[in-house]
Amino acid sequence: MILLDGKKIANDLKVEIKRVVEQRVEDEKKIPHLAAVLIGNDGASLTYVGSKVRSCDQIGFKSTLIRLEENISEKILLQKIYELNQDDSLDGYIVQLPLPKHIDEEKILLAIDPNKDVDGFHPANFGKMALEMEAFIPATPFGIIELIDRYGIETSGKHCVVIGRSHIVGRPISILMSQKGKAGNATVTVAHSRTKNIKELTLNADIIISALGIPEFLRADMVKKGVVVIDVGITRVPDKGAPKGYVIKGDVAFDEVSKKASAITPVPGGVGPMTIAMLLKNTLLACQRKD
Amino acid sequence: MILLDGKKIANDLKVEIKRVVEQRVEDEKKIPHLAAVLIGNDGASLTYVGSKVRSCDQIGFKSTLIRLEENISEKILLQKIYELNQDDSLDGYIVQLPLPKHIDEEKILLAIDPNKDVDGFHPANFGKMALEMEAFIPATPFGIIELIDRYGIETSGKHCVVIGRSHIVGRPISILMSQKGKAGNATVTVAHSRTKNIKELTLNADIIISALGIPEFLRADMVKKGVVVIDVGITRVPDKGAPKGYVIKGDVAFDEVSKKASAITPVPGGVGPMTIAMLLKNTLLACQRKD
Repeated sequence: MILLDGKKIANDLKVEIKRVVEQRVEDEKKIPHLAAVLIGNDGASLTYVGSKVRSCDQIGFKSTLIRLEENISEKILLQKIYELNQDDSLDGYIVQLPLPKHIDEEKILLAIDPNKDVDGFHPANFGKMALEMEAFIPATPFGIIELIDRYGIETSGKHCVVIGRSHIVGRPISILMSQKGKAGNATVTVAHSRTKNIKELTLNADIIISALGIPEFLRADMVKKGVVVIDVGITRVPDKGAPKGYVIKGDVAFDEVSKKASAITPVPGGVGPMTIAMLLKNTLLACQRKD
Repeated sequence: MILLDGKKIANDLKVEIKRVVEQRVEDEKKIPHLAAVLIGNDGASLTYVGSKVRSCDQIGFKSTLIRLEENISEKILLQKIYELNQDDSLDGYIVQLPLPKHIDEEKILLAIDPNKDVDGFHPANFGKMALEMEAFIPATPFGIIELIDRYGIETSGKHCVVIGRSHIVGRPISILMSQKGKAGNATVTVAHSRTKNIKELTLNADIIISALGIPEFLRADMVKKGVVVIDVGITRVPDKGAPKGYVIKGDVAFDEVSKKASAITPVPGGVGPMTIAMLLKNTLLACQRKD
């Protein structure tokens, strides 16, 4: 069984990007600059954004953290977005989700300049990705593709079952895996909450990508021997014995499924670190596009 | 067995749209206006465009046919596109594909104003569709959804196999069928040229949508009893005995598959007429958006 070590591959990627940045410094080219907009004080969001900013520091990117009050109005936030769009020093920026309930997420998303949308969430980028044009690919699916590719896992002609149809993981990864190109050409099935025969599907899958958010949903009796399993689930499960009062659980019952799998991602340390690495990669691409 | 009569439903739709136009005339609102750009003299393209223009006339739309020489330069074509974008009298326009080889299709597509892109081929529209925002949906998949919906065929939780991953049919219909909403919530598998076990997949499918372009590819021994079959294939097969020297064949061996199917589209008279009707529907929507 191969452990798909996202932490290691993400570090490899960061080292590669760091070298590119060092070369850019030497060549007196622009240093990539990422900004992150964080609204309010949500614990998980603070952790994610903090991790993104630290990663920028590690590899020599400039980074800017913009913290806004939970009760900011939509109008003021939109104004902030327009400023970021105008700011030529910035190559890309992200608006950390989820947003407070009084703000229309779609409106904010559409206001982001697609050329700075390094999260790849803007429909202009999503459409280009789906139509096989040059685009920013959302970081999580981009990371999954990179992980599968770096471990040399064959995908062409394989049956891949994607569990979940979210805009940021299930839908884009299902498209990418069935396109021509890197980690592509798979026969892809998208399963979701209305799917009736999920076990029948997963039992026949060569590759399973689970992005459901139900801890330990995928059990050993649902997979065939030799399956490749990518676990995108990250759920905080309360645990009084744990130092933080919770433990992180994936969608996959790792202990039992790993015994049947030919390759599997751990949680944490699998897809999670890859997501940040690919955000950095997108920011580098945004910067390089302007050379 | 129910024959999914696209010709009839398309006519129903046209009658409905015609009534809306008549009401608009009465209300002194703008009359929908569609333009079609046709380059060169390709026989099939001439037929399609001619049919679109005639349909406009039937339902009271204004229409403009713009015919350009086969050897037109990309630059002049782009100039024409910008003129159409500027023309406020136009609600929508299409550029009939395929384009001559010396013209970059992607460049032309990206130049079309997404608000006038009634073919729904621009990535901004494609992305919005995939992300469940308001968008122009490409006419063929839009027509399939409408046809399935009007015949009251259950799709929720059903297993739908889409054969083909093209940008204009396979990919968008696979997304639409698995989304929430009209004719949605199906578990969708996308099969394509690299798929190995196609017969195994189609044998388990409740719904098969074939957009492959191989005449009579789908045979009776590949489907289960009660299957719903949507045939998007339109191939001209040479036939010396036929008045035009060819006959139109779908992807499905209709005579034998129809005996096992619970519902099936004929070719011609199935998806084809729906495509034109939905182009008109998109043009009406484009016009109404400006009210």
